[in-house]
Amino acid sequence: TSSPSNLFGNRGMTLEQDLNDTNQYYRSTGKAVIHKKPTPVQIVHVDYPKRSAAKITEAYFKQPSTTDYNGIYRGSYIDFEAKETRNKTSFPFGNIHAHQMEHMHDILRHDGIAFLIIRFTLLEQTYLYDASLFLDWYFGQKERKSIPLQDIRENGHYIPLQYSPRINYLDIVDLIYFS
Amino acid sequence: TSSPSNLFGNRGMTLEQDLNDTNQYYRSTGKAVIHKKPTPVQIVHVDYPKRSAAKITEAYFKQPSTTDYNGIYRGSYIDFEAKETRNKTSFPFGNIHAHQMEHMHDILRHDGIAFLIIRFTLLEQTYLYDASLFLDWYFGQKERKSIPLQDIRENGHYIPLQYSPRINYLDIVDLIYFS
Ligand SMILES: [Mg+2]
Ligand SMILES: [Mg+2]
Repeated sequence: TSSPSNLFGNRGMTLEQDLNDTNQYYRSTGKAVIHKKPTPVQIVHVDYPKRSAAKITEAYFKQPSTTDYNGIYRGSYIDFEAKETRNKTSFPFGNIHAHQMEHMHDILRHDGIAFLIIRFTLLEQTYLYDASLFLDWYFGQKERKSIPLQDIRENGHYIPLQYSPRINYLDIVDLIYFS
Repeated sequence: TSSPSNLFGNRGMTLEQDLNDTNQYYRSTGKAVIHKKPTPVQIVHVDYPKRSAAKITEAYFKQPSTTDYNGIYRGSYIDFEAKETRNKTSFPFGNIHAHQMEHMHDILRHDGIAFLIIRFTLLEQTYLYDASLFLDWYFGQKERKSIPLQDIRENGHYIPLQYSPRINYLDIVDLIYFS
């Protein structure tokens, strides 16, 4: 398939910004309740100055134990991880931590909806890719350490960028999981 | 009703520790996938020293925009906030932020399961209390700024402390939401 054209462009917005904007739109219109989880941080030291807010002065980033986004849509539990890559031909597994794989696997076992939203930043293309397909690649073969873009194009779903909501991924969710 | 006895005692465990232990138990036995969200932090400054991990040197606690726990159980979206109070006669509204009220309201509108787990630490008693009852108290009257313990005893559900899992709240969820 040829590269879909991109009328709106990224305009310097990251995938996370686009998704936050979109989830805000979904919440305010009553379509879904989906939030990004806070970045996990290991807090080591906090100062409590008088008359001002507690200040964290030493902390470190922790590996997330789950994916970044979850919530409820059409009565179903929904869960996804969003990743950008500068790679132009494939999506490297290294982008997803072992705990996140395990988490997606758990969600599928419990009949939740789980997927990835993958943006190829240099190509300006974003795809929704089902978690079970991703886990098949990861656990089902040993030759490759990445998923070919070609497969993501064929078995995933292109998400066009729009003005508002920026990245209307629930339209794709309707198509894949509710029809 | 009289105070239920507490065979196992708190043994210095906070409600959060008890819930983390319990959720870990639920995940490892395949019963449910429920996680605590990370504490939301506004990161202001990060040092990137050579040859060691990025160090956050200035950050502040942010108000959470959702409740602290969510996940999937028996195919349903489940969401709750956990709070400890040292109050002996009532649960003050001030323990729950406006955003969290709004979030619980949203979840109920989308047919999710939402509740509070409230521990009266000095009484060593823990209760599950449905979010709709909580929101009724909060929005339905103006006289009180708290929910009487008596009401929580009558309309909530006492959760006994056990050895493992520490606080088996899904037994109560079965009773209230699945029977
Ligand atoms: Mg992430
Ligand atoms: Mg909290």
